[in-house]
Formats: sequence, structure tokens, C-alpha cells
Amino acid sequence: MKKTLKSDIPRKTVYRLSVYLRCLQRLRTNKIRTVSSEALAKAAQVKSTQLRKDLTYFGQFGTRGLGYDVEQLSAMMGELLGTTSLQPVILVGVGNLGLALISYHGFEQEGFEIIAAFDADGQRKRTKCRLPIYSMDKLDEVILERAVKMAILTVPAPEAQEVVNQLIAHGIVGILNFAPIMLHVPEEVMVNNVNLAIELENLSYFIQQ
Amino acid sequence: MKKTLKSDIPRKTVYRLSVYLRCLQRLRTNKIRTVSSEALAKAAQVKSTQLRKDLTYFGQFGTRGLGYDVEQLSAMMGELLGTTSLQPVILVGVGNLGLALISYHGFEQEGFEIIAAFDADGQRKRTKCRLPIYSMDKLDEVILERAVKMAILTVPAPEAQEVVNQLIAHGIVGILNFAPIMLHVPEEVMVNNVNLAIELENLSYFIQQ
Repeated sequence: MKKTLKSDIPRKTVYRLSVYLRCLQRLRTNKIRTVSSEALAKAAQVKSTQLRKDLTYFGQFGTRGLGYDVEQLSAMMGELLGTTSLQPVILVGVGNLGLALISYHGFEQEGFEIIAAFDADGQRKRTKCRLPIYSMDKLDEVILERAVKMAILTVPAPEAQEVVNQLIAHGIVGILNFAPIMLHVPEEVMVNNVNLAIELENLSYFIQQ
Repeated sequence: MKKTLKSDIPRKTVYRLSVYLRCLQRLRTNKIRTVSSEALAKAAQVKSTQLRKDLTYFGQFGTRGLGYDVEQLSAMMGELLGTTSLQPVILVGVGNLGLALISYHGFEQEGFEIIAAFDADGQRKRTKCRLPIYSMDKLDEVILERAVKMAILTVPAPEAQEVVNQLIAHGIVGILNFAPIMLHVPEEVMVNNVNLAIELENLSYFIQQ
């Protein structure tokens, strides 16, 4: 059997997987056991041909006329996305945005736990921060001890590349980057950029008359 | 001449426009007057064929052998993206994330100004908030007075759809949505979703061995 490599799968497909998983979780909450590809696609706001195409990357699912087994399909997706167990994540840069993300409760219910925060100023006083704030020289210790692979980056743009180099040197392979800058990373490291100004610009473009 | 409709242009192209614009701005800061498509593409981390293809949606640019005029190309892009003048934006939902975005200084230098914040609890006390927090019944007044077209949505998921309905009823046509939910909106309204848990899941998928 031909094995599909992870790198062959479009990033968009993986994003949609997350959306399908959320729709399936809602069905489970409502004790619904099977779902047609049309109904699942509609809930996810995609075409059913798209849903079926996305799923073919991962195997054969569903029974003609019966649809998908909700429990089975969501278990498979959780497995693929690595969210069946809580994954440790570190955050670097405890400014306003970093602080807000630390207190954001949405991550844990989705399988991610911010276990430690770092800042260039390890003495940074943040009365509202529920986590201890470490200085950067503790990176190695924390990453090793908790086998951390992912980091959220909320440092100012001019510092971002240097911090990223440090993170990678200590074994981080996935970075959620909020700094408005293009990071240079080796091929095996994955960066997802969240650039809020660019999101607004994109909206702005489309809403102009 | 055949006119390209906005809706014909891929959203990804418009995202890349924002990235090109940032690269051009850096060139301007460094007093560089012309740039080849190869150099600009490299700075934006895309292929030069992609850059050239993206630009063809908007007209003819550049001179063979000379490249692009930095000033001219960035003026055109700023015009297209509507960031040549400061655009007013409102924010709804003054929780931790909303508060962080209000104090985020990255928006203004990119052409967007959060001019007012709203919350279901109009009496919400936020000592650190630089803006007055209005209750939702002030929406109409503020949107009308400042001709606001865009909103940032940072309310909890269960409230998001209802708030969006209100926003749209009052004339908002572009929404940057942080609530982890798929919003239903009419065709003429544009929503960009920022779902932080999904970004982490996406990373998580690709970094698994």
C-alpha cells in the first residue's frame, strides 16, 4: 500500500480536519452516532466533494448509504492531530498579548497546555499571570524535562528571529508566531504565522467598494 | 479592458499582497528605489512566478531588466488594501484577549485604529483599558458617527452569532473573528477567522513523527 507522507498533505486539508473534528464533537455531545458526508460538510461549511477528498488522504471511511461513524471518525482525527493527550506548549514573550494567551482557557479544552512562560526580562512582574515567568536561560531545562515540542512566540518583531534560533537549538519544532515578521527556520521546523494586521488588511481589501 | 472583479481574486493573493507591501516598506526605509521580481519574491518567501502571477491581477508593473519601482508599487498596494488612511475599527468583547488587542500597538502603524470597545456588560471595569467600554445599545451611534465598516470579535463562542447579527444589522461588513465558532453571515459580509487552537493543532499534526 502506498503510504502518504505528511508533507504531501496540503496544510489546508489539515486545517479542515480541525474543523471537521469540532463538528464531530458537537454531534457526539448531541449523541448522534452517524453522519452523512453531506451533513458533515454542511456543518463545516465546505462542499461534500471537498470533505471526501480530504478524508481520502487518511484512508477509507464511511459506509455507502450509512455515512460516517461519528465516534470512529473523531477518534481517528484526534489521533492524527495529536490532541488525544494534553500537549505541553511554552510561551515566549509576556507582553499584553502573551499574557492574554496565558489566561485564555480555550487551549486546554483543545488538547494544549501552556506549561511555562519565558521573557527576556525573567524578573518581569505580572500580577495577573498564573504561571511563573522564567528567564531565557531556563529554556533548556523546561523543554527537556517536559519534552516540549511547541512554542507560542509573542515577542516584539526585532527580537523574534533570535529567540526562534534559541528555541530551535533547544529542540522546539513547531512555532505559532505572532511577531509580524517572516522567520527563517530549517526545513524540519514548522511555523504558523498569526499576523493580526494582515488579517485586517485582507478584510479591508474585500470590503472596499 | 476586462475588469477583474474583487471576488475573482484569490484570498491567498490578497494575503500575499500584504506581505509584499511589508517587504517594499522595508526597501523604502532602506532607500532602495527599484527591486527585481526575484529579490522581492525572495524577501516574501514565495517563488518569483507566484509574485508575478499575483501582480497580474492588478495590472502591469515593472520594466524588463529594471524591475519594480518600489515607491509606485507600494503606493498601488496601499491603495488596494485601503491602508493609505487610518481606518476605524470597533472591538466587541472586552475579555482578556479583547483587552490585549486594544493595547496592541501594531494595528495603528498598519493603518487601523480601534476607536471603541463594546461589551455585553457596558459597566465592565477595566482599569487597564485605554478606551471607554460601551454597552451594545451604543453600537448604532458609534458605527454611524465614525462610518465604521470593520469589527474585531472577541466574545465567547456561545454569544458570537448573536453579536454578529447585531453588527451586520448596523452596517458592519468585515469581521475579524476570534470566537472558535463558524459564523453564518450573508454573502456580502466578509469574515476572517483566527482560531488559535486550530493553529496549534495544525502545527501539532505536522511535527508528529
